[in-house]
Amino acid sequence: MSADTKTGLQLRSLIKKSGELEISLQSVPVPEPGPDEVVVRVEASPINPSDLGLLVGAADMSTAKASGTKESPVVTAKVPEAGMRAMAGRLDESMPVGNEGAGVVIKTGSSDAAKALMGKTVAILGGAMYAQYRCLRIAECLPLPAGITPAEGASCFVNPLTALGMTETMRREGHKALVHTAAASNLGQMLNKICLKDGIGLVNIVRSEEQAGILRKIGAKHVVDSTAASFMDDLTNALVETGATIAFDAIGGGKLAGQILTGMETAINKTAKVYSRYGSSVHKQVYIYGGLDLRPTELNRGFGMSWGVGGWLLTPFLQKIGPADGARLRQRVVDELKTTFASHYTQVVSLQEALQLNHIAVYAKRATGEKYLINPNKGG
Amino acid sequence: MSADTKTGLQLRSLIKKSGELEISLQSVPVPEPGPDEVVVRVEASPINPSDLGLLVGAADMSTAKASGTKESPVVTAKVPEAGMRAMAGRLDESMPVGNEGAGVVIKTGSSDAAKALMGKTVAILGGAMYAQYRCLRIAECLPLPAGITPAEGASCFVNPLTALGMTETMRREGHKALVHTAAASNLGQMLNKICLKDGIGLVNIVRSEEQAGILRKIGAKHVVDSTAASFMDDLTNALVETGATIAFDAIGGGKLAGQILTGMETAINKTAKVYSRYGSSVHKQVYIYGGLDLRPTELNRGFGMSWGVGGWLLTPFLQKIGPADGARLRQRVVDELKTTFASHYTQVVSLQEALQLNHIAVYAKRATGEKYLINPNKGG
Repeated sequence: MSADTKTGLQLRSLIKKSGELEISLQSVPVPEPGPDEVVVRVEASPINPSDLGLLVGAADMSTAKASGTKESPVVTAKVPEAGMRAMAGRLDESMPVGNEGAGVVIKTGSSDAAKALMGKTVAILGGAMYAQYRCLRIAECLPLPAGITPAEGASCFVNPLTALGMTETMRREGHKALVHTAAASNLGQMLNKICLKDGIGLVNIVRSEEQAGILRKIGAKHVVDSTAASFMDDLTNALVETGATIAFDAIGGGKLAGQILTGMETAINKTAKVYSRYGSSVHKQVYIYGGLDLRPTELNRGFGMSWGVGGWLLTPFLQKIGPADGARLRQRVVDELKTTFASHYTQVVSLQEALQLNHIAVYAKRATGEKYLINPNKGG
Repeated sequence: MSADTKTGLQLRSLIKKSGELEISLQSVPVPEPGPDEVVVRVEASPINPSDLGLLVGAADMSTAKASGTKESPVVTAKVPEAGMRAMAGRLDESMPVGNEGAGVVIKTGSSDAAKALMGKTVAILGGAMYAQYRCLRIAECLPLPAGITPAEGASCFVNPLTALGMTETMRREGHKALVHTAAASNLGQMLNKICLKDGIGLVNIVRSEEQAGILRKIGAKHVVDSTAASFMDDLTNALVETGATIAFDAIGGGKLAGQILTGMETAINKTAKVYSRYGSSVHKQVYIYGGLDLRPTELNRGFGMSWGVGGWLLTPFLQKIGPADGARLRQRVVDELKTTFASHYTQVVSLQEALQLNHIAVYAKRATGEKYLINPNKGG
């Protein structure tokens, strides 16, 4: 570790009590690793939808302004008053960002397990990854096989484990097939590959014919377009064919979650023998794991009484299944990193470039098909 | 059993494909009881909100018209087209109504257990109770102690077991206190008595100061009025004081379920130490068990990711806890029938009177404080 790696740049997001978001780069000391820790030079970290929540929070990025210098840019934007309530817990606190990434171990602690990682390329999870250097416990590092680059291993955790978490949750809660929305996303494509490989019925809901095409090209069997006039019929038919009674919804707002429950109830009742004014006794579940549509969720409750809607997050799911099952899922990700779990990025940017308004305008709109990778050591 | 009890009147609800509701009285044969069955002369059966769903369905009762004769009245009403989808499973099928009731055993099957019930007053559960006679399996009969009248025992199941089901669910799902809406109802008053007796924290949400007064009079500690300007603050304070993280909601539609989750999240975060953009990790649950407000449920999702909203029904709950725990709950109801589980009725009507438009106008509006009891053998 040379003298110039005693400090490193780290991206910070700050929301002030005054209602202003400020994104900047700070020079922070690189900690000395403890016995079971290592220092990783971060070379790749994706901008996932889950990172944007922390990075831009409730700010209205159409008000974004650039200032600072080329080497140390600053972006500011207004947070609408309606959004400030949800920001209460983080006000005036400068927060590092970036859930996951990959890089090379450049310094280790004194333990044998730490020393064994020296020079290795590792996938890393634990926040604050939009930084040149990151000190981590070895348990937070997943050594990658030879031949895997940091860019290839940067998205080992969030999307792959979320996709696997969906099929695991489906099985554990007694369902046999599932529904996924915003289904042409990077995550959605992974989920299709898992379901095709594992023989699981999957109903993909997309919001355009173009997105439907992306999924059909990778072999998806059931793709329905929520903007089509025939959407409810198409959805119900796919639910009859698959028997799906659980859905994972990245949209969150509007009527979609309720439409899925209605479609499931209609599909179930096509084979029902006896009328019950409470609807079918088959439990129908929608888990909301994202909020691409920030409007309220609207449920018309025309789907009987055996239903649930709730939040779903990867971290509590991993806590629930325990370390052994978690390790099994992570091993599958590593084994299939160049196939099932391959991620595709449309842009690779430096920390400074990530703060350029032209890039923010693209990645902050969370559009399917646009995926950014930050290389904090790009050009450095 | 005299010659004139070979047939009896039974109330029927029919929704025709044409979009018309028809409520009438039919003369139906009284079945011969099998070995383990008895015939009960029904003398009391309440009109619960859960009965109204079957009795009037999605019909618009402001369009109700009376026809037929005094002895055999008929009521018709229009079902709005928007409501017909939910009625699909019951079209052109004449359905008996009435979940529970009480009466006197007038004929028994050949088994000793059946014979032992002869002449006894029993509480009964199983549907089709708006009828002069009802043949039931002995397992569907709960013998009442001497001194309990059919009117006193008519509501042994739905409200008492629902109220007990709420506190049981609260405990089983790891919560320590609960919230109840439409809390001044007959059911809500029972729930207050249970919680006071068992030392459980209960937040009562009502929709008027008058209803708040009803609850305070019976000793309720936390009563908040959703029509007050200070509602969210009042609710949050009560949630802080009780630590309630589960709610049972009879309203269903509108923003209330989401407001309860928001209040819970705010209350939890008052003691949170670390910011998480996903909100608190404490699971917050709202179970919707009624639909007093037929509008869509609107969730603004400003309450983190650890939450669930779902349907809750007594029958699946009893199936889940099993017969031994079910029997324990039923025994408590019988033991406390004149105290905790006493029901109060504002009207006792015959089957014919139940079909008078002036009575329908009162009981079909599901107003808190108005509770009808049908005596199918009144005056007969």
